[in-house]
Parts: sequence; structure tokens; C-alpha cells
Amino acid sequence: MDLSPLQKARYAYTPKLPGMLRHGISEICVQEGSATQSVADQAKIKELFPNTYGKNEITFQKGKNTAPAKKQVVGVILSGGQAPGGHNVVCGLYDALKATNSENVLLGFKNGPSGLIEDDYLTFDDAYIDQFRNTGGFDIIGSGRTKLETEEQFAVAAQVCEKHGITAIVIIGGDDSNTNAAVLAEYFAAHNTGVQVIGCPKTIDGDLKNEDIECSFGFDTATKIYSELIGNIERDANSAKKYWHFIKVMGRSASHVALECALETQPNICLISEEVSAKKMSLSTIADYIADSVEKRAAKGLNFGVAIIPEGVVEFVPEFSMLIAEINELLAGSKAIAFNALATWKEKYEFIEKGLSKEAMAVFAILPEGIQQQLFLERDPHGNVQVSLIESEKLFSALVKDKLAQRKKAGTYTGKFNPLHHFFGYEGRCAFPSNFDADYCYSLGYNAFMLIQYGYNGYLSKVSNLSKPAEEWVAEGMPITKMMNIERRHGEDKPVIKKALVELDGKPFQYFAAHRDQWAVETAYTYPGAIQYFGPAEVCDLTTRTLALEKG
Amino acid sequence: MDLSPLQKARYAYTPKLPGMLRHGISEICVQEGSATQSVADQAKIKELFPNTYGKNEITFQKGKNTAPAKKQVVGVILSGGQAPGGHNVVCGLYDALKATNSENVLLGFKNGPSGLIEDDYLTFDDAYIDQFRNTGGFDIIGSGRTKLETEEQFAVAAQVCEKHGITAIVIIGGDDSNTNAAVLAEYFAAHNTGVQVIGCPKTIDGDLKNEDIECSFGFDTATKIYSELIGNIERDANSAKKYWHFIKVMGRSASHVALECALETQPNICLISEEVSAKKMSLSTIADYIADSVEKRAAKGLNFGVAIIPEGVVEFVPEFSMLIAEINELLAGSKAIAFNALATWKEKYEFIEKGLSKEAMAVFAILPEGIQQQLFLERDPHGNVQVSLIESEKLFSALVKDKLAQRKKAGTYTGKFNPLHHFFGYEGRCAFPSNFDADYCYSLGYNAFMLIQYGYNGYLSKVSNLSKPAEEWVAEGMPITKMMNIERRHGEDKPVIKKALVELDGKPFQYFAAHRDQWAVETAYTYPGAIQYFGPAEVCDLTTRTLALEKG
Repeated sequence: MDLSPLQKARYAYTPKLPGMLRHGISEICVQEGSATQSVADQAKIKELFPNTYGKNEITFQKGKNTAPAKKQVVGVILSGGQAPGGHNVVCGLYDALKATNSENVLLGFKNGPSGLIEDDYLTFDDAYIDQFRNTGGFDIIGSGRTKLETEEQFAVAAQVCEKHGITAIVIIGGDDSNTNAAVLAEYFAAHNTGVQVIGCPKTIDGDLKNEDIECSFGFDTATKIYSELIGNIERDANSAKKYWHFIKVMGRSASHVALECALETQPNICLISEEVSAKKMSLSTIADYIADSVEKRAAKGLNFGVAIIPEGVVEFVPEFSMLIAEINELLAGSKAIAFNALATWKEKYEFIEKGLSKEAMAVFAILPEGIQQQLFLERDPHGNVQVSLIESEKLFSALVKDKLAQRKKAGTYTGKFNPLHHFFGYEGRCAFPSNFDADYCYSLGYNAFMLIQYGYNGYLSKVSNLSKPAEEWVAEGMPITKMMNIERRHGEDKPVIKKALVELDGKPFQYFAAHRDQWAVETAYTYPGAIQYFGPAEVCDLTTRTLALEKG
Repeated sequence: MDLSPLQKARYAYTPKLPGMLRHGISEICVQEGSATQSVADQAKIKELFPNTYGKNEITFQKGKNTAPAKKQVVGVILSGGQAPGGHNVVCGLYDALKATNSENVLLGFKNGPSGLIEDDYLTFDDAYIDQFRNTGGFDIIGSGRTKLETEEQFAVAAQVCEKHGITAIVIIGGDDSNTNAAVLAEYFAAHNTGVQVIGCPKTIDGDLKNEDIECSFGFDTATKIYSELIGNIERDANSAKKYWHFIKVMGRSASHVALECALETQPNICLISEEVSAKKMSLSTIADYIADSVEKRAAKGLNFGVAIIPEGVVEFVPEFSMLIAEINELLAGSKAIAFNALATWKEKYEFIEKGLSKEAMAVFAILPEGIQQQLFLERDPHGNVQVSLIESEKLFSALVKDKLAQRKKAGTYTGKFNPLHHFFGYEGRCAFPSNFDADYCYSLGYNAFMLIQYGYNGYLSKVSNLSKPAEEWVAEGMPITKMMNIERRHGEDKPVIKKALVELDGKPFQYFAAHRDQWAVETAYTYPGAIQYFGPAEVCDLTTRTLALEKG
């Protein structure tokens, strides 16, 4: 295998643990805190988790280790989309496990939760794990999106655990995976399997956070990569002075990624889905909002700019959601056959015109033809529109172009508008983790093992005080049920971890809102540059602006 | 202005000069070398450049500075597309100029060569220039694409120079800009203006190189950015194990950028335009070549991969060039009116079918509909197809998909093929320059002033031995005419700098060719990670694999 110079250099990096975990395994004791309850729907959640609900929060401290001596066989699973630092969670877990007892065993189930069900695994040793220290990716064991949620799956999981003598499972995943971890923990407890389940908070989207979880891992590195690229493009825009760049960034429904990138790079425009939803903004309103910036900058001779578009924004535009729902209905089941039989787009368009309500058609009509066709031609196996495929960066630039043409006629705008489009997502999920994510993830894994060692089940590995240097970080554990509420999913009431959206009265958004009018007109770009691993601490170790504002 | 932590840290970086320039201005002497001649068409070039042809190569050395004491007023111009390090050329020029005589003046003409003609400039001082040290972008004075090539322009330029008492102009640009610099130098000499012209070799495309110019500046940084992103995507591909990524990279006609990225990241596939042309490959042949890799990997259970597509590749496919030529002819002038009047794509398609030759239509018919429409609907102001807008990454993935469908029917292929598409270009043009580009550019600018000081005209600032540490670099000067030959451009014989394409018998391509069959089937990815500025030398200071192979 050919290794890059950086990869070799990163092998030599020693991740920083919270101060309280730095004195060796024998000097880690536990401090029980108060009993917990779920953030909402307490009675229902308690009923669903009779064995794991209401447990105490705990904190690790320096002190004599009083955990029972017991050989541990731990299985670890990577679940869902990649996030930088996943390898370090596994490394931290492995190091704590081996430091406690060299007879302990760590198994890695391959390609996501399905690896547990299919009993597809590898056994870690030093030589193997050392190849993955401080590297990006989930290729150490692979990841997958199978959900562990049925009783049948749990029964198989229990058998696999029994077969290998597994004492605990660590699930590294997002909100859904940690919800499922809690359900699995309850099953294991209810069936007296003796197997513990510990979760670790992963997702670049940043939507797994709450009063306990300051941030999920991977968010720091991914937003730094996107901000590097956006900053580079801003500098290009300000040098060439002739393009408007529309940049879509990954992040599913929530706009945490877009907002963090905006705080790092100070673009002219950044849409925030949660605001679009709260203000019930139409496509036309959004296009006018962007066009206002284009027009004001053009009046100053600045025919260039940068706009950040969060991946999920169109789903938050009420009229657009309505259109999607009508299209899904229009082509449901056998109705698609008649549509698909039509030979030309013109005939299809007439079919659509007849089928949609007047309101939906009004929205459809203003879309650029490429997007119109995408909505009808690229559908998922259930016949539904694939919202994630919609090139919203092109949608908004086309709508802005129309607005500017109107303004040109009206005489208020005389500039030039040349849009370019970008989408940043996959570039950020498997980068070498920043020092922050390398440290945070290693700590999460190390801490997860301490939770196992002390016998906790249905807990999330929690490391907090993250806006401070690692020495001051706090290693804790929290029952996963504490983060849960009841939500309606697919027509059923389900206990789930509440997804964190951008809070419009939170400090990060408020800071953005206080500055964006200036950024829209002036060229106030900031250029973060590439992630640095070796330089001065203020360049290498700072985490996100979001966290700094939330904690500052 | 809000500055990122990295930007502040980069201000503190001191670029490294070649050893011979490190002893202060008073200790730089010149060593005249032998007389030069152009690489081809010597008689014609000599005739066109009677005053500047055939001059000596020169080398700077440590020794008593014998240049005449003369106040210098220098104008600098950034020409064409951005390249990382442009700011450092200006900084090196400024520092040498001020170190020689604090009364010397550096003017920056704004927004490219047009700034000289329009007398639009700023005067540099310490406070201003310090904001741009070691930063990316061309925003220090802006850039532009106006060409300085007519006698009228030269006459105006001479007036502007006279007005300000300008003694020399430094033009920072690519092959065309340096060609024009040579023509301007000749004009100034012929008209006894006393104004010198010095060129500096810039372009991320890497196509301005020859036996004298080891590489143009910006190529190192831009390819490092693209390689960072490609490596991240490779790691993502190898973690998710379900996507084939088709990645187009900038670089105009030549494939230097794609090749360097392939050497850095070891993808499954990298097309090289020069090879496509030499082997007269058809679209179908290329698609089969990629499909072979997809099929072989699928047989090993690897339904993922990464393919690099150079920006200009479709222009090198003979049958595709023929198609473009026929389309341009089909819609030339008033013929477009009839076409544009047709309402539906179906009618337009019939028009096209009637108008194209059988051979061209055969090529057209295999293109995906999106590309077909793009060819006809997005034309430049002259009605020509805009080849640079063709989404060749989508074109090839669609053709590969067709091939795989055939192979599935034939029973040779049973895998899954989910393509994703990326284009990397603007992200790399304005990044903070790597240490290499920061040093190289600063040296080019410093050296340019020494050429001015010693009275050279029509010379290129040349720094060589670049694969070695900066201490061993060699500071030189070379008549621009040495790089010239005569080429047919727009129906006229023109003296131009020969553009460097990838040499198929050169070491970089040969290394690639020797390894690519293995890379096509195995997962041999290398992950370069982000550009580092502060770490160990082997991580921070190495330049390209291309240069290492060429010089190694």
C-alpha cells in the first residue's frame, strides 16, 4: 500500500484525552449523578424502556478504578454515512480495552449493522488498527445503512453475541442509529443477555446535539473542508470579479453545516432552511432575497458573489413541498404508466398541467425546464420524487436570473449575472480528521470502554466542555433515553432522539442574522484555508464557530 | 476585515529564495551565458523580433552588484486565470525593488492588461502589500483577459509608461500573455522607449513548460487541492462501497493536472487527452475501457471506483470533434433561425438527424439526451457549441452505463453501478499557495526585479532546479523568444510560445501507464490530505510527483 507523506505523519499523532482520563485505567473512577428523564413524553418513553429508563448521569474522575475485573469481548459497528474521526473512536475503544486487560477482545462487525446480524466480523490487533490511526474514512470495517429495529434482528444479534461471548456492543452512528442502540439495549436487558450497548454520536450534519451532546463528531472536519473550498471560491470570485457562485452543501434537513460555513467564510448569501420554514418563504421570495444582493452589489460595480444553499432547503419551502406531494400523488402506482407512455416532454407537460392543482402548477411553471424534467423523470423505486437529487443550486440561480431579467426591464438593475454551480458533500465525509475530531473521537471511544467496564447499558459516550482545550474536557455517560421523545413516523408513534435543527433564537444564527445584511452588499469574505494539523494551536486546534458562539 | 487564523499565520511566513539571491541586493551579480535561438522557425522568429531575438541566457550569482544605479518605476500586471502564488510574485518584486532603492516605485495595473491601456493603477506601499503576503487569489490588483497584441494598444501603453516614467513592465501570465509580453518588448525596443518587459510563467494548467521552464507557478497548489479532494472521495468510495465517482478536473486542453492528480491519488481510471488523441480513441472505446475496470472490480465484489476525467478530453476524441464541427456548420448564421423556431425537442432532433452526416449522427445518437440538448441549446455568441460547458463526467458515466447494460445482457457483468459526478476547478485557483508556490513565486518576482535592474528586455524570469530544496534553486533569465515557434492561429501565421502537452514517452505518463492496469482493478488509493504549511518538510515542502519523476 502506498501511503501519502501526510498519512505517515498522522500515524505519529497522539490524540489528546480529557484530563480526567489521562492517569491510566487504574485511576479512573465513576461519580454517579442524578437520575434522568426523557426530554418529553416521559410516561410513554418510560413504558417503552422499563429496564433502561431513568438511569443516572455519570461522570468519570481521577480516582481508584473500582470496576469489577471481567474479561470483555466488545463488538463495534459503524452505522450510516461516513464522518471524519470514526477510525479514532475504534482506536480509542481498542486502546482502553487492551490497556485494561490484554486478554480483552475487540471485534469489528463489517459494513454496518448488517455485519452483526450476518456474523460478519474481524478481530482487531495492533498491526491492523495502527494502519487507521488519525485517518479519515470508515474503511477500517466499512459502514452500512441497515437498521437494527425488529425483534427478529435483536434475537439474531443476541445469538451472535452469545456465540462470541460478547459482553458489549458499541454503535457509532447518528440519531436513528443511537435510537436503535437504545432499543437494542432495552431488549438485551429485558432478555437478561448480559450484553451492554453503548452509543457514540456521529454525523457531519450536526443535527445530533442537545443540552448534553455539544456536537456530533465529524461536523468540525467536514465544515472545515467545505469552508476551505468556499473560501477559495470566494477569493476566486473576488479576483475574477465576474461570476456568482451558487454552492450547495451537504447536511440533509438541518442547516447547521451551511450556517457554520457561513460563519467561517462570510459569503454574500446563505439560506437557512429553518428560517425559510418559519417564515413560510416562497421560491419567489427567496429568489428576490438573493436578487436584492445581486442588484445592490451590481450597483457598486461588483458583478460577482457567493451564495450558500443548504442541501435540504427546497423541502422547507411550503409551496414546493406541496408540489412534490401532488407529483407523488399524480404518478402513484399505475398512474405512472400513462405518463411514461407519453413520447415527448410537451405531451408530458400537458399531462402534468391537467393533473396538478392550480397552485401547484403555478410553482411548477416557474421552475427551469431541467428541474421540471428531473422531478418527473428521476423517481425512486416507490415512484416518489427524489428530493435529494434536486439541483437546488441551479434552481435558485435560474429563478434569480428570471428576477434580474424583470429588474433589467424595470430599469433597476443593469449588471451582469454569470452563475456557476457547486455541490460539496462527499469531499468532507472522509477527510483526515482535524485535531479536534481526532481528539474528540479517540476520547469518545476510550470513554465508551470505561462505560462498558463500569457496567452501563443504553448509555451514550459523552465528552463535553469541548470549546475548551482537551485537558479541560469532561468524560461522562448519559442514558440515551434522556434524549428521546415520541414522534409520528410512517403512521406510528415511535420513541426517537429529537433531531436538532438550527435554532433561530440561538447565538450562531443570531450572529449570522446580525451581519448578513452587511455581507450581502460588501465583500467581507474570510478565507479559512486548508485544515492544518501541525501549526500553532489557534490554527490547528480550534473547533467550530458554532460551538464557540453557543458556549461563548 | 475579518481574517482567518491561517491567514494571520501565513503573514508570518518568510518565503525561501534561491541560495544565490540570499546575500542581499548588493551581492547579486550576473553571469552571461550563451546566445539563444527559438525552438523552431528560427529565421521567421528572428525576423519578427529583430531587437530582442538571440540574446544570451543569464544566471545570477553571488558577487558584487554591477547594475547601473537608476531609479526604477515598475508596473506589474496579472493576466488571465488565477493561480496560487500570484500575490507572492508581486511581493518578491516589491521587496527587491524597495531593497535596491527606497525611492523606487511599484505600480499595479488593475484588472489585467486593460489596466495598462486604461491607465488604471494603484501604487504599492508596505501597508497594502503586507495584506497579501503568502495568500491566494489575484485580488491584490485583479486580473483580466484582455490581450495586448495590437500596435494601437502598444502605442497607448508606451504613452502611459512615459507619463509615469515607467522603466519596466512585469507581466504575470500564461503562454499567450508571455507571447504578448515578448511582442510588447520588441515594440518598446524598436521604438526606443527604454521600457523593459519581463514575463513570469503562470498557469495551474501546467502547459507552460519546456526545457527551460520546469513548471509554471500555481500548478503545485492547484493539483494538491484537487488531489486532496479526490483522495477524500476515494476514501469515501472505499468506505461506502457503493458509488463510482466521475471527477472532472480543470486544465484546459492539456492533461497535466489530471495526470498529476492520478499520480498523487492512484485512482481506478484516469483519462489522458493526449493519449486519446494519439490512439484516435472513439467515445465507445473509452467507455469500454472504463467499463472493463467496472466489470473487473464488480467481479471481485467491488462495486465502487473513481475515474478522473481531464476537462478538455472530448475535444481530443476525433469523432466528437467532427460532430462539433458539423453542429457548428449546421447552425451557422441564419440556419439557426429555422432550428430555434422548432417547438419541441423531438422536432429539433429530426432537424438534426436530417442535417448531420451519417457518421456524425452515429456519434450524436449514443450521447445521453442531456448532453445532446446541451450541444444544441447552449451556444456561444458566435453560435458555436461551448465545448468547455460539456459535462464530460456525465457523458462518460452515461456511456459506461450503456456498456454495462449490454454486458449484463451478455452475462459478463452482474454488478451494480451508481455513478456520482464532480468538477474541481475554481476551488484550486485561489488557495493559499503551498510553501513551494509561495517560495517559487516570491523568487520569480525577486528575480524579475534583478533582470530589470540589469537592463534585460523581453526576458522571462526563470527559477530552476525546483525538485531540490530552495537553497539549491538557480535564478536565471531567458529570452522569451527562445520558447517560440510559428503556429497557425485564426488563419494567420503567428509567433507563439509552444504549448506543452503531456508527453506520452515522458516519465510521468510512463509511470502512470506502468501502474494503471493494477490500479484499475485493485483499490490502491492514496490519500494526500490537505496542504500543510507548518509540519515536517516531507509533508510541507515537496512539489509535484510530475516534477520528481521528470527530474528523478
